[in-house]
Amino acid sequence: MSNPKASLPVIRRLPRYFRYISELKSAGKTRVSSSQLAAIMGSTPSQVRQDFNCFGGFGQQGIGYSVELLHDEIHSLLFPNASINAVLVGAGSLGATIANFVLTDTEGVNLTAIFDNNINLVGKTLHNIRILNADDIVEYCHSNKVDLIIACIPKSAAEKFAPVLVETGVKGVWNFTHYDFSIYDKSLVVENVHLRDSLMALSYRIGHIDGDQE
Amino acid sequence: MSNPKASLPVIRRLPRYFRYISELKSAGKTRVSSSQLAAIMGSTPSQVRQDFNCFGGFGQQGIGYSVELLHDEIHSLLFPNASINAVLVGAGSLGATIANFVLTDTEGVNLTAIFDNNINLVGKTLHNIRILNADDIVEYCHSNKVDLIIACIPKSAAEKFAPVLVETGVKGVWNFTHYDFSIYDKSLVVENVHLRDSLMALSYRIGHIDGDQE
Repeated sequence: MSNPKASLPVIRRLPRYFRYISELKSAGKTRVSSSQLAAIMGSTPSQVRQDFNCFGGFGQQGIGYSVELLHDEIHSLLFPNASINAVLVGAGSLGATIANFVLTDTEGVNLTAIFDNNINLVGKTLHNIRILNADDIVEYCHSNKVDLIIACIPKSAAEKFAPVLVETGVKGVWNFTHYDFSIYDKSLVVENVHLRDSLMALSYRIGHIDGDQE
Repeated sequence: MSNPKASLPVIRRLPRYFRYISELKSAGKTRVSSSQLAAIMGSTPSQVRQDFNCFGGFGQQGIGYSVELLHDEIHSLLFPNASINAVLVGAGSLGATIANFVLTDTEGVNLTAIFDNNINLVGKTLHNIRILNADDIVEYCHSNKVDLIIACIPKSAAEKFAPVLVETGVKGVWNFTHYDFSIYDKSLVVENVHLRDSLMALSYRIGHIDGDQE
């Protein structure tokens, strides 16, 4: 099912396709055309077909796509059979919200432990998960099957944490920290959520609203 | 200084340039070449020069760019003279964290009010800002100069909120909600932060790690 040619932009569009198709399914629709999907996605029918062709095409185009089949195929792409085991590093305000988000609002990701280097937090619980000492993270990741680290730590801590992260042997980082972990290990899958960058780009666009509208 | 031809991808790269250049400045560097910037950005010297040319070029290339000048010019692009006035809609867990982030960790954005439709929250405070009734948001935005709405509400609430948002007359939305507000008003500047999409894309990449590495 997987195709090695799926580029990062295509992969990033998959969750949006999945959201829209889930809505169509909930609304009782059984068929959807590439034109209808293109209208929702703000792209073109040709782009939709190209995207889907990266994953085998998802059935016949002439009569439209089956909503049920699209839903199930994209679901199986986005949520592999085995759940992803994740640990969170950084039990501060952002870490607490992201932990809550992962525990209540996502599927396919198990949050198994939370780490912090603040001795005052270690031993306490966050959303019923015990906060462990950040010094023990490599040992924990080796003893347990951890795929993903969710990084919610300050940048200064991140620089020290980067070599430790590589030692843990995890496959990926969901990175809320303004630090480029991929510099340390190019094979690491890194998904950055840089809130400050996002707000700065928005600030630019609002400030230059007459000239830069697309 | 502003150039109408700066595309969204170029605008989105500006905050990253700004972060790197701020680091170079803190480290006492005075000059930086497009090759050095390209190496940090993971792009090419030609891409860096093209990006900078959208904003007037930022000085002579032959002897490298002045770090000080780059810093100041990009700062003035990202942070227009007048601060942006923002209000937050949704005083739940995510809203509380985003409010805290804006209040403590950003510049150029003033958070002036927080709104919620939960009567149990209205009248309470969040980070010393009083939570107002969501029914009053249009009046508030008309009486005060509000540029930006930060949306941290559930999708079901967002559908009802979309027409209200247009009535407020704000210029932009920092959107944490899985709802496409731009469908309602194409002139609205929308910056989406879709945490669930980000995690799904990461989940895909970890699950298909052998085939889809770039």
